[in-house]
Amino acid sequence: MGQIIINDCTLRDGMHALAHQYTLEQMVSVASMLDAAGVQIIEVSHGDGLNGNSVNYGFSRHTEMEYLRAVREVLKSARLAALLLPGIGTIEDMDMAIEAGIDTIRIATHCTEADVSKQHIEAARERGLDTVGFLMMAHMLETSELVKQAKLMESYGAHCVYVTDSAGALLMDETREKVRALKDALQCQVGFHNHHNLGLGVANTVIAAEEGADRLDGSIAGMGAGAGNCPLEVLVAVLNRMGIESGVELYPLLECAENVVRPLMTRPVQTDSSAIMLGYAGVYSSFLLHTERASKRFGVDSRDILVELGKRRMVGGQEDMIVDVALEILEKQKG
Amino acid sequence: MGQIIINDCTLRDGMHALAHQYTLEQMVSVASMLDAAGVQIIEVSHGDGLNGNSVNYGFSRHTEMEYLRAVREVLKSARLAALLLPGIGTIEDMDMAIEAGIDTIRIATHCTEADVSKQHIEAARERGLDTVGFLMMAHMLETSELVKQAKLMESYGAHCVYVTDSAGALLMDETREKVRALKDALQCQVGFHNHHNLGLGVANTVIAAEEGADRLDGSIAGMGAGAGNCPLEVLVAVLNRMGIESGVELYPLLECAENVVRPLMTRPVQTDSSAIMLGYAGVYSSFLLHTERASKRFGVDSRDILVELGKRRMVGGQEDMIVDVALEILEKQKG
Repeated sequence: MGQIIINDCTLRDGMHALAHQYTLEQMVSVASMLDAAGVQIIEVSHGDGLNGNSVNYGFSRHTEMEYLRAVREVLKSARLAALLLPGIGTIEDMDMAIEAGIDTIRIATHCTEADVSKQHIEAARERGLDTVGFLMMAHMLETSELVKQAKLMESYGAHCVYVTDSAGALLMDETREKVRALKDALQCQVGFHNHHNLGLGVANTVIAAEEGADRLDGSIAGMGAGAGNCPLEVLVAVLNRMGIESGVELYPLLECAENVVRPLMTRPVQTDSSAIMLGYAGVYSSFLLHTERASKRFGVDSRDILVELGKRRMVGGQEDMIVDVALEILEKQKG
Repeated sequence: MGQIIINDCTLRDGMHALAHQYTLEQMVSVASMLDAAGVQIIEVSHGDGLNGNSVNYGFSRHTEMEYLRAVREVLKSARLAALLLPGIGTIEDMDMAIEAGIDTIRIATHCTEADVSKQHIEAARERGLDTVGFLMMAHMLETSELVKQAKLMESYGAHCVYVTDSAGALLMDETREKVRALKDALQCQVGFHNHHNLGLGVANTVIAAEEGADRLDGSIAGMGAGAGNCPLEVLVAVLNRMGIESGVELYPLLECAENVVRPLMTRPVQTDSSAIMLGYAGVYSSFLLHTERASKRFGVDSRDILVELGKRRMVGGQEDMIVDVALEILEKQKG
């Protein structure tokens, strides 16, 4: 097993938890501590990636250029990364981020749509970036199919392809199977990113490490969308105890969680009912609001709607179907 | 794999999180919901077991007789359990609990001191109770030695012996090894109880289930000492997803967490720095206060003291040694 690379998401996925309202000072403070602790990659972007700063995805307090430049200035050894979702961000945004000083770009697509990343991964390689492919909602795809999608990203030039458990829906055996299959099939690095919806954030990330994952994501105090990401300081504690070298010091991460990040939380990042149900059903968090509306309108349990959406493997953009599902459940209950 | 038995600790370990201040109404409310959800065993006692209600361990709002009777009255199908730590509780306390209507007694000792439980387990069997042995701080003992201690409890008449990860210090492989060894060596049932200090509360409990553990502990919303117990509603969600039958309904547990238990929390039950360090070092939570005092007095990092205490496998009652350890670290740093 080579040296594991830790990729911190506190300043990107964590943006969701703060409604994208980090101040520059807060970002700089977190980034400096992570850098000093030895974290290898620090990601800074809108929660939904470059150009997410919009009426659709929520306005952030500062522009991405401001955030990236502020963090760039204080980094001594960590690489600076940005996330880009084709469809939200463009190659122009990538060029802006390069101007601001990024080293790494992570190109994220739904797990069935790796082909959408071709242009962006190729552009990133042309520009000399450390280039990562990010297969989101990876629990929705059979492992053999996920491998095919990962191979596409590798063929475009990705240095690393991620199994991304966006809904925190993967069980431990499923995580092991998927990471192992990618490690077996790819020449490039493999990464793992997840959420804590089923309380398995740390466990699944450790399992990914056991299976040889090269890059592991986490956020300080779990700071991220919904139930949060794998809490990085806990992950490093467990890796230390297991004798897996992460290159990251534990104590500064504990201090960052306690003194800087947790005090910023406007509400605790925790596995509450909604978070559990999203992970349990394996659906996008964007479904939640629509589902609760349909639940009230038709008097159908929102949890039953979520489970049914998960069974049908609904993806973002199919929110219209929620009403249909609610009506079908209502019919069944009457029948 | 037989039907798993869920043992809830919200009203016992959860007492710690509330400084033992549950009202009778709160207890009854939680117990009714757990009972209706199908939870098989509900434990009600002072956080430190019967007779913990004292100046040493903290006074509770009501007597145990009052708590047990109030809960007994509302249970329709769940068994009522009490915890007893020989040295704190006595056989007289057990008789009081029997009078109040318990079905199950759990006799807890440090993992090296099963022999202390002989008299109490035998007395419990004579009185016709469902009798459980609870081997606390199980991470401190080599597996082969833990098996010997478990066999002692079985020989006294325990119907079930628990691997109890009181410090939340067990890694996943360690949990697997210990539960498997007990299952292999014992004729009686095996149980698993843990804490969430290293974020592995759910993962380790699921692993225990995979290894055939018959009884699994959890608390609603993790309500328990320090980082809390395995959160029961998350555990049931994961067991459901894995197709492991727990006999417990998920939705009522989610509602109990959201509407009843989490609103009671005077501070969030979470894996903060102190909790992580206790799990990381594998030491009793009672060491924390003394360690912080020694840290201030000698200017030594409290985290280094905890790690050293863990290495030396210090147990409760050895708090005097903390000053010695702090001084030794100070010497080394000067050297």
